Amino acid sequence: MPPARSTARGPIRLPDSAQAALSPLPTARILGGIWAERRRINREVSVPSAWDRLQAAGNIANLELAADGGAGEYVNDLPFLDSDLYKWLEAIGWTLADPELAERTAAELRDRLSAATDLLNRVQADDGYLDSHFQVRFPGERFVQLAHGHELYCAGHLIQAAVAAHRSTEDERLLAVARRFADLIVTSFGTDHGQVDGVCGHPEIETALVELHRETGDQRYLGTAQYFIDRRGHGLLGHHPFGPQYFQDHVPVRDAQAVAGHSVRQLYLLAGVADLAVETGEVALAETAARLWAEGTATQTYLTGGVGAHHRDEAYGDPYELPNERSYCETCAAIASIMFSWRMLIMTGGAEYADLLERTLYNGFLAGISLDGERYIYANPLQVRDDHLAAGGDQDYARVPWFRCACCPPNVMRLIASLEHYVALSGPTELVLHQYVTGGYAAELAAGRVGVRVATDHPWRGEVEVTVAETVEPEWTLTVRVPHWAAGATLAVDGVPVDETPEDGWWRHTRRWQLGDRVTLTLPVVPRLTTADPRVDAARGCVAVERGPLVYCVESADQPGQRLDEMIMAPAGAASISERTADGLPSEIVALRLPASRRPRVASSWWPYADASATQPAVVAEQIELTAIPYFAWGNRGSGAMRIWLPTS
Amino acid sequence: MPPARSTARGPIRLPDSAQAALSPLPTARILGGIWAERRRINREVSVPSAWDRLQAAGNIANLELAADGGAGEYVNDLPFLDSDLYKWLEAIGWTLADPELAERTAAELRDRLSAATDLLNRVQADDGYLDSHFQVRFPGERFVQLAHGHELYCAGHLIQAAVAAHRSTEDERLLAVARRFADLIVTSFGTDHGQVDGVCGHPEIETALVELHRETGDQRYLGTAQYFIDRRGHGLLGHHPFGPQYFQDHVPVRDAQAVAGHSVRQLYLLAGVADLAVETGEVALAETAARLWAEGTATQTYLTGGVGAHHRDEAYGDPYELPNERSYCETCAAIASIMFSWRMLIMTGGAEYADLLERTLYNGFLAGISLDGERYIYANPLQVRDDHLAAGGDQDYARVPWFRCACCPPNVMRLIASLEHYVALSGPTELVLHQYVTGGYAAELAAGRVGVRVATDHPWRGEVEVTVAETVEPEWTLTVRVPHWAAGATLAVDGVPVDETPEDGWWRHTRRWQLGDRVTLTLPVVPRLTTADPRVDAARGCVAVERGPLVYCVESADQPGQRLDEMIMAPAGAASISERTADGLPSEIVALRLPASRRPRVASSWWPYADASATQPAVVAEQIELTAIPYFAWGNRGSGAMRIWLPTS
Repeated sequence: MPPARSTARGPIRLPDSAQAALSPLPTARILGGIWAERRRINREVSVPSAWDRLQAAGNIANLELAADGGAGEYVNDLPFLDSDLYKWLEAIGWTLADPELAERTAAELRDRLSAATDLLNRVQADDGYLDSHFQVRFPGERFVQLAHGHELYCAGHLIQAAVAAHRSTEDERLLAVARRFADLIVTSFGTDHGQVDGVCGHPEIETALVELHRETGDQRYLGTAQYFIDRRGHGLLGHHPFGPQYFQDHVPVRDAQAVAGHSVRQLYLLAGVADLAVETGEVALAETAARLWAEGTATQTYLTGGVGAHHRDEAYGDPYELPNERSYCETCAAIASIMFSWRMLIMTGGAEYADLLERTLYNGFLAGISLDGERYIYANPLQVRDDHLAAGGDQDYARVPWFRCACCPPNVMRLIASLEHYVALSGPTELVLHQYVTGGYAAELAAGRVGVRVATDHPWRGEVEVTVAETVEPEWTLTVRVPHWAAGATLAVDGVPVDETPEDGWWRHTRRWQLGDRVTLTLPVVPRLTTADPRVDAARGCVAVERGPLVYCVESADQPGQRLDEMIMAPAGAASISERTADGLPSEIVALRLPASRRPRVASSWWPYADASATQPAVVAEQIELTAIPYFAWGNRGSGAMRIWLPTS
Repeated sequence: MPPARSTARGPIRLPDSAQAALSPLPTARILGGIWAERRRINREVSVPSAWDRLQAAGNIANLELAADGGAGEYVNDLPFLDSDLYKWLEAIGWTLADPELAERTAAELRDRLSAATDLLNRVQADDGYLDSHFQVRFPGERFVQLAHGHELYCAGHLIQAAVAAHRSTEDERLLAVARRFADLIVTSFGTDHGQVDGVCGHPEIETALVELHRETGDQRYLGTAQYFIDRRGHGLLGHHPFGPQYFQDHVPVRDAQAVAGHSVRQLYLLAGVADLAVETGEVALAETAARLWAEGTATQTYLTGGVGAHHRDEAYGDPYELPNERSYCETCAAIASIMFSWRMLIMTGGAEYADLLERTLYNGFLAGISLDGERYIYANPLQVRDDHLAAGGDQDYARVPWFRCACCPPNVMRLIASLEHYVALSGPTELVLHQYVTGGYAAELAAGRVGVRVATDHPWRGEVEVTVAETVEPEWTLTVRVPHWAAGATLAVDGVPVDETPEDGWWRHTRRWQLGDRVTLTLPVVPRLTTADPRVDAARGCVAVERGPLVYCVESADQPGQRLDEMIMAPAGAASISERTADGLPSEIVALRLPASRRPRVASSWWPYADASATQPAVVAEQIELTAIPYFAWGNRGSGAMRIWLPTS
């Protein structure tokens, strides 16, 4: 029997020596529900159409230019265009493992992967160097512009693409390209004489090198990942106009007490820190990852799971500084957060990591792509005012087919394409379901292979039926997560209620499981009203509507003729909220009807502030009904106003 | 007798043909109180020390480089360094008219003005062109980089400096330099063949050219100002990453319905629009100025009078989008707002313009310079969290001696140096006191010259005593403003209460005034609590404390050992607020004692959001006292936390 852990085929494959509570599974398959539909759109629409987008945006032309020796005009002055292609190739890698993939599309994607590998082989220098931006625009210049050049960031995405292609399809060719570049990085960087002592302004290489080590068994990749983490925070990156915390160079990694700076960089770095801690068992690193996850989650995370409060530097702000209109909440930051939380869950088995992963997945992440899979959004605000975009407002809030800085679209694709791996995990004696997605999940336990089928209409309905589909003679544990929002959840085994209290967010049921045994988890998916810590100034006097893992919002498309800024008041209570459908959205999306009242606009004064003791003009509140929709579905019916936090008075 | 209007010696001198309700005075002098002290510091500390700062920052070296033919390294890549010098020269111009100026300082400043003029003469090309950035870095290139190059912006500040020096000291030499450059601009720009058809990315030249026209009588300057206003908003500036509204090129000036974009640019432009409307009497322009003032004030102005809600582009946001932590509120924007409001007051006589001018002057503007006149702040937030700066927060919130982009410091100097002109105005038959500043103010009415002495301890105390010091035989009107915050104000003439209701914010008293007649205005300078329009989301559930024209804040310096984020609650009511002094601030500053309660920090969960219906942990509120200080005085005792809006629950 192969070592249990080394059979996983997703973004993380742990060695048996890993210092981790849980492991990714050898078999995971999504077969129905909301995510099966999102994956269908991803493989049928988003991933195939990205080829044209990459061509139109110049990514391919730039690589051709580099392959041909660089005489010509490089398109776009951003230095990281190659990474857009790499993330898309990673998405192709995972997609090629999707059993639902149509053969015609599979052939097309295999051709793309092959052609791209040919191209990359042509671009790659003899010594392994590969970066079209530097090869064309700064010929011969290597590993000099580390603060802003994104060379190692691009290399990291190349490596992740190669690992995905190799794990999914046994493709060796892209892996060979990636290894040649990785080998050059390994020999080029370090503190020895003649080596470059430096780190990349944008972390990403760290987690990639750890995984390349896992894929190849080459210990040097792990050593270089450790080097990059050890050397970060020692001022090697120099000055940045937004301060050294912008690229997490303000403090040695192990000394950091709080998340800071550009949120994608911070979270990719922490993903690498968690990976390294799992490999080496270093307590200080593991504690750093846990400490920063806890601090960031408790003080700098939006209700949607989104992170990054500042537009200017795409960065974290102060603790509890979470403005709704200027929430940056870059789609890539949500992805990075999911990657980091998943690693923390694997490392520790803590249910809160799965809670945040779920919340970010269904809200801050999923809002980043349109329902039809054709358009993306860069920043994910929690509030957009009436006429915002029409008045020349922030174009980061518009759903568009592609971006000049197109980091998000292929990042969305690679996560959705590998999502089956983010659903279930295993321990030595347990199969752990931490997300509820219809499908099949199997694990190699110490006692042998076990598996379950999951059937659910989550997040729309609360019932999750888990049926044992593979089992072994000895007893083993089936562990299911009780989400932090699911007070009142019940569990039944073969129809018999289990009278146990979940412990630390998990229900663990151990027995000699038989084929066909059935566990029914019932989560109270009912609307609830949520408030924020009083230190979250931006949510004072407001409530949000949630239902299951979904954060809801009101959008002007559902309230014709009304201005959200002026007229919205919160519903009286959660019990008065009922379900409905929303016009123009797929019928399976559960919208909510909120009884509310409307505050007619008071004739405006020249000055918007008034004496608090002055008698307010008598306003007759009009009773109205508002429609709320899941946040992820906003912005699919035009560019109107939207808000999550609703004033209560 | 000279025409009444043409004798004014401040930043605006109206011709008799001006379409304006009011006019600046020929004689205005500040003799005591808060502003006399600020002016003392300005002329003794800020203005003299700026010479060293300009030398250290490279402004002088850059001009020397240009004078010497440009072989050398230009310091700083910002294109508008010359304007820092020009604003300082303007401050010198006004300061040289200050009768309180010590002779030794006067001699020093005259020498500086003379030396700078010599230098500018050396830099100026034969055809009048003068811009060290372009002469050194882009030799021969002129009026090409209009979108970002700030050439005309710099020219505008040169013109304003020259007008100030000429009005104050009859200095003709700087005026000659400015006129040569202005003449080049007049001939270079226009729609004729061979002319440049373009506008400057940063408005400023418009108001400067109108004033140069007034100073010289040369009609061509007015024509070119009109040209720049007419041509703006037609896309001449091309693309900007933040959109064309960033530099107000998104809509023709007369069609604009709302303020937009970079707030300093918007308000300098509107100052020029108001100037032009007063000159030409064009109704559409006057209406545009009034419309945008009203829209901006009612929906996009902070309680402090500050404007500009976005950091990324130093710009206005959406209506009612007024975040407290990320309020940009650049000091220059407050100055631009004062300039614009003053022009609207002159144009229309509307008291609301004086109300906003007062509010901005005492709060959003005055906070921009430290009490000792040595340090400046670029952005003026309404809230700074505990540990913000220590945690690598926004360095725009720190008071520092100078900036790399040093637009604000000399801008502060020029306004304070000319402040006596912003206090009183005159109509044909009335002397109008719209601000309350101890001093002497005289006007040329149709019937002859009249004057008053004002004695007040405003803003600390509410009594304003106005004594007639010059008068004429016929009756004339003494007009005093009743600020919008001063409900319950009383007026007495020679001790006899006047039983009249102020009309539209003004108390107009007409009689045959005798020398020594005494008008006593009593403004209720008592603490009051203020709330915001419900659409100002950032102030929901909060009150602010105000007293007279002053907005108050709480600052961590006065609440040792407490965290403002966690513990501050609003006082019970205005009546319970009492006066005190604050440790470490000058004793004349009236601080306030607020009875409040303290909410002990609740043990934190991993997630900062909770079910609204969940029972809150019982918290015993502790009664405490907070100290509030005038907002303008914050940040003078270290870089601690501060907030204006205080939660009420």
